[in-house]
Amino acid sequence: MFNEIFKTELKLIDLHLRSLFNTPPDSGTDLPVELHRLYESMAYSVFSEGKRFRPLLSVLTAKALNKEPEQVLPLAAAVELIHTYSLIHDDLPCMDDDDFRRGQPTNHRVFGEAGALLAGDALLTMSFGILAQSPSPRAAQAVALLSEAAGPRGMVGGQVMDVDAQNPGKLLLEDIHKRKTGRLIQVSVEAAGVLCDAPKTQVQALRAYGEQLGLAFQLADDIQDFDPAKPEKVSFASLLGNDETLRLLNETSQKALDALADFSSTADGLREMVRLNRDRV
Amino acid sequence: MFNEIFKTELKLIDLHLRSLFNTPPDSGTDLPVELHRLYESMAYSVFSEGKRFRPLLSVLTAKALNKEPEQVLPLAAAVELIHTYSLIHDDLPCMDDDDFRRGQPTNHRVFGEAGALLAGDALLTMSFGILAQSPSPRAAQAVALLSEAAGPRGMVGGQVMDVDAQNPGKLLLEDIHKRKTGRLIQVSVEAAGVLCDAPKTQVQALRAYGEQLGLAFQLADDIQDFDPAKPEKVSFASLLGNDETLRLLNETSQKALDALADFSSTADGLREMVRLNRDRV
Repeated sequence: MFNEIFKTELKLIDLHLRSLFNTPPDSGTDLPVELHRLYESMAYSVFSEGKRFRPLLSVLTAKALNKEPEQVLPLAAAVELIHTYSLIHDDLPCMDDDDFRRGQPTNHRVFGEAGALLAGDALLTMSFGILAQSPSPRAAQAVALLSEAAGPRGMVGGQVMDVDAQNPGKLLLEDIHKRKTGRLIQVSVEAAGVLCDAPKTQVQALRAYGEQLGLAFQLADDIQDFDPAKPEKVSFASLLGNDETLRLLNETSQKALDALADFSSTADGLREMVRLNRDRV
Repeated sequence: MFNEIFKTELKLIDLHLRSLFNTPPDSGTDLPVELHRLYESMAYSVFSEGKRFRPLLSVLTAKALNKEPEQVLPLAAAVELIHTYSLIHDDLPCMDDDDFRRGQPTNHRVFGEAGALLAGDALLTMSFGILAQSPSPRAAQAVALLSEAAGPRGMVGGQVMDVDAQNPGKLLLEDIHKRKTGRLIQVSVEAAGVLCDAPKTQVQALRAYGEQLGLAFQLADDIQDFDPAKPEKVSFASLLGNDETLRLLNETSQKALDALADFSSTADGLREMVRLNRDRV
């Protein structure tokens, strides 16, 4: 949805992600041949036509703060690896048991269940190390924020609530989505502010923007994915109807834009992300 | 094996671990009722008669460096949570498919496969956040070390190699065990040195001690667990025989002690750990 507009930023992100999985034969790295398949398995899912929505947000946040994108590339990589691990584990037979993802066989269909489980564990573990190696003096604070957003009160918690929920109402559904999808999107923006050493008021504004955009992202997803033939899948669209979900999407998108009121035109990239998400439906 | 000798240290570790899972009703925390079972599932495995070998090493390292144990409690908790997550995932049907662990039903037998998968993911994610919140100015460096030790070139890598290995020889078996068991033990010591702001030479000595103790721990495990009725389970004992494994255990234990040569009697706790491990067999 934004391949052309953010071509330069996406290229930077892709190069950085590839550098994490490159071990040229002459680099003196000691990766034993027994681990080649693990790296192949991780790379299979990381380089599988993902939209890079979250890392793009980190890079656009740096731009909004007049900082170089390099300052947030460790975070951009970390959030994308965490997003990828969550998809691998979600697709496992004991979870959604999906055979295809983005038109390709899911990780466990190619590398087996144990392989997929461990590839997910490896990506999650790597992500914090990559972020911790950021040269920013506030790297540890960014790690703490990422852990909170992805952990038992954040993404994993939302996943648990989603697995367990029977006929959730609107409030519970919103809580599930804020955790499951919203928190990682939010931290992609908020932690970028921290790594760029933004003052507290700016970080708070970015956090509010990220929260609203995270919800708007899920609302647009739910409208796109709504299938009247599968009413058992609970979503905003199936619960509230298409019109009300669209109204909520507009309202939430406006709140995201409002949160950026004190930013100059340097934040136009972040504003564009709101519009591109809105215009998916 | 060391409950009495290190009673004070174990009490501290237990209190700290419990504080991470306590959410008193009047604390104003916002844990929704839907997440209570996730926390119950995590706590089920964290408080299940584990020996606390790794966190004890962190606390004893602080002592060796004349620092307060509080300085390393975030690390002590983090390594124990990572150890716990690795056991939960190892026990899953797609891995070892174990029904019992430490005399109790395994996590997935109580909370289901999806519940166990997500409890493991949550513990792993939490661990980095806990460590990142350490007040040490070198917290980010400790996070990077822990990620490396637990990730695709460390513990997860060793797990992958263990799943895939067909009749490994001695060198490959040693590499597997160093990664799968050794690296987390090693980082429990090394990162404690970093958090205590020890100079480089001391951190290197602690790293060497941890590496040898990690190997000695696996050698003692293999002697204890060796079952001539199950020769298909590859271990040092089944590969090299009991006598040669015992000789290696003695040699490795001595190397661990030698690595501490420049430490005074403050490191006697770390020395005692080597002897207690040796005397398991």
